[in-house]
Amino acid sequence: MIQLYKLKSPIVILNFKTYLESSGENALNLAKALESAGEESGITMVASPQAADIYRIKDETSILLLSQHIDPISPGGNTGANLFETLLDNGIDGSLLNHSEKRMELADIDLITQKLNENQLISCICSNNVSTSMAAASLNPTFVAIEPPELIGTGIPVSKAEPEVVEGSVKNVRKINKDVKVLCGAGISTGEDMAQAIELGAEGVLLASGIIKADNPKEALLDLVSKI
Amino acid sequence: MIQLYKLKSPIVILNFKTYLESSGENALNLAKALESAGEESGITMVASPQAADIYRIKDETSILLLSQHIDPISPGGNTGANLFETLLDNGIDGSLLNHSEKRMELADIDLITQKLNENQLISCICSNNVSTSMAAASLNPTFVAIEPPELIGTGIPVSKAEPEVVEGSVKNVRKINKDVKVLCGAGISTGEDMAQAIELGAEGVLLASGIIKADNPKEALLDLVSKI
Amino acid sequence: MIQLYKLKSPIVILNFKTYLESSGENALNLAKALESAGEESGITMVASPQAADIYRIKDETSILLLSQHIDPISPGGNTGANLFETLLDNGIDGSLLNHSEKRMELADIDLITQKLNENQLISCICSNNVSTSMAAASLNPTFVAIEPPELIGTGIPVSKAEPEVVEGSVKNVRKINKDVKVLCGAGISTGEDMAQAIELGAEGVLLASGIIKADNPKEALLDLVSKI
Amino acid sequence: MIQLYKLKSPIVILNFKTYLESSGENALNLAKALESAGEESGITMVASPQAADIYRIKDETSILLLSQHIDPISPGGNTGANLFETLLDNGIDGSLLNHSEKRMELADIDLITQKLNENQLISCICSNNVSTSMAAASLNPTFVAIEPPELIGTGIPVSKAEPEVVEGSVKNVRKINKDVKVLCGAGISTGEDMAQAIELGAEGVLLASGIIKADNPKEALLDLVSKI
Repeated sequence: MIQLYKLKSPIVILNFKTYLESSGENALNLAKALESAGEESGITMVASPQAADIYRIKDETSILLLSQHIDPISPGGNTGANLFETLLDNGIDGSLLNHSEKRMELADIDLITQKLNENQLISCICSNNVSTSMAAASLNPTFVAIEPPELIGTGIPVSKAEPEVVEGSVKNVRKINKDVKVLCGAGISTGEDMAQAIELGAEGVLLASGIIKADNPKEALLDLVSKI
Repeated sequence: MIQLYKLKSPIVILNFKTYLESSGENALNLAKALESAGEESGITMVASPQAADIYRIKDETSILLLSQHIDPISPGGNTGANLFETLLDNGIDGSLLNHSEKRMELADIDLITQKLNENQLISCICSNNVSTSMAAASLNPTFVAIEPPELIGTGIPVSKAEPEVVEGSVKNVRKINKDVKVLCGAGISTGEDMAQAIELGAEGVLLASGIIKADNPKEALLDLVSKI
Repeated sequence: MIQLYKLKSPIVILNFKTYLESSGENALNLAKALESAGEESGITMVASPQAADIYRIKDETSILLLSQHIDPISPGGNTGANLFETLLDNGIDGSLLNHSEKRMELADIDLITQKLNENQLISCICSNNVSTSMAAASLNPTFVAIEPPELIGTGIPVSKAEPEVVEGSVKNVRKINKDVKVLCGAGISTGEDMAQAIELGAEGVLLASGIIKADNPKEALLDLVSKI
Repeated sequence: MIQLYKLKSPIVILNFKTYLESSGENALNLAKALESAGEESGITMVASPQAADIYRIKDETSILLLSQHIDPISPGGNTGANLFETLLDNGIDGSLLNHSEKRMELADIDLITQKLNENQLISCICSNNVSTSMAAASLNPTFVAIEPPELIGTGIPVSKAEPEVVEGSVKNVRKINKDVKVLCGAGISTGEDMAQAIELGAEGVLLASGIIKADNPKEALLDLVSKI
């Protein structure tokens, strides 16, 4: 069971998505780079690999692991689904939920967030603007990660392009539920981006292609946290 | 790479679905029972576990492995999806497709079947009646598994309740594409059920809860193949 | 354009769903019964028919009309979708959103609610418990309709079976956004049910099969509002 | 009930999609242009408007009407769905199915095609390549409309860019089921395109934006059929 006090801010979550550079054997190598960058920098770094890669990474690293999604089902006849209990048995410490590439129905986000909370696991609900950040915060997750979809994968950091969305989310999420922490996603890849995100009130970042596709992911991660 | 000539008929495929009895550590034990029953009986037995359980089973057994589903995506930004390349790297020899609990769009069944064919992997498209069996056969998969949805999980074998659906599928699939083999799913669990399925022209069976929830899955599997 | 001040509380919304009794010609007759019951009782009554039935009802009655759903799309290549602009041209005054039988992704509920607000139309977001009611209220709709899914279609009124869910929703929705009104759905069909709902703080009810399948829907509606 | 013998080849089906130029009042005007072009040219022309626009067009024209999609449901609790019986009551003569913008699961295409056949209505299943055309033909529809998705909305006619896909579909569909007619979609807009499609063995065309966005849709339709 994850002890949430171990999650000291700021936090860096790397969404592996389904790039070849972050799949299978490569996923394991990327997780090791993340683990190593975390140890060197003293910053909490969390991996979010594909379901099929979780066990292998758990087996060979001690990094914190989030699944990228959990299907809103109970044990039983659900061929092809990713069951919470199975992911947990394979080693997850929590999950991303409602990523813009895997949007979920409101009732399902609520259901899975509750299940993670009951098991004292990390829940990170992705949102796309201030009002959905507030809605997400109402569901009492560990994190709300604000990612305007138009910036995902662009390399344009939300902290620079739409700072008011980050600040507005931080302010309004706090009003709804002061225990929920806001992360900043979409376009974050450099030390400057991350420093700006923290200044705007975020307690960490949710990253993806900027690091995954870097020539040297570990160096890129160390650069990312170099200005905080 | 799977050598398809190794797939001698009849074949037994066990869909692990998302039962607790077939998830995580239990999935590994069930796969070992399947492997052991296959060795003892000389019948080809194939496991279809959840994505997160594939690596662990591959690591500790030499059983043939099918994923339960593959998402119709290419490598890239597809958070939460199960990528073909990742499943392959983790050890699959093919996949179930279009199970009644994970129905797929027609164009997507075609796309993934082609991808499996190009890699000489096993594709098993589930269908629900004679006309969808014919449609599935048009896509040139290894197997079409006919499973009338109203019988799934009932313990009432399709070979007894609706033999004309099995015979009709065998006959019409052969007309469309004589290389495609028909499997019989839904309600199969005993030796008599399997013998009947073979008599009706099926070259094997697709099983699930009848075996998963048996007190002794290995014994249940040996009973299943005892009359052929 | 709907003038929201006309929506005096309490309000009765009838979801026509897709019953034969509330489809096509029958939808028109049901809408007339609703209109007539509204005039006799002085209570605001609103119809929510299927998309294909909207124009016909608009043409022959003057009842307020909500669509049952609006697809989260813009004008363009979206074969088979129900476009906001088309529904508006055919006469809607707003829409139900996120009904338990047509759950929507969080970002899409937000998008369509904003579009309705910009056009000063009625938005009624369905929720299933206190936390999703709060999330819905964050999106600033006209109404949040609380409908525990386990009670829908049972005839067991939520106001009696789970009064704490209604009261909790009213209290917490008010905290988030005092302009949002709470409606009570699921199992409501009698005058007593509605009176109880109002007592618990709801400003109206969302109904369906209890009225649709009544021998005399107009009488059933008059009975419903007889104790308030 | 539609008398299928009235559907003399070649046939022109116009998919209205959800463009503003083909929605609401504009849908009615476009349907009238289509009706008028059909009468002048003697070619069978069929409109496929959005669900909410069907009644209005039925009321004011005598054109053949297809819905763009039918949800795979039965009468009952299906808020937000488009029910077959309701569309029929509002005047459809059949439906498009499985358009690339509204892909359907294989079993659902089969279900709705059967329902249309039982009512002697027109079914037009869209496919994206030769193998899915064959699969569609196995389900016994009135038409299979082949539309390579990469050409939809481009103005590049499939008959010119990928003639082998049209010819291959015609040839193989005939093998599977000689009663099924092949239509040619994607990128068709001029008289030359349509003539080429007919030469390749198609018995008509499925059109959309090329006509919908024409300055004068009626003239564009008359041009389309001018070389056959």
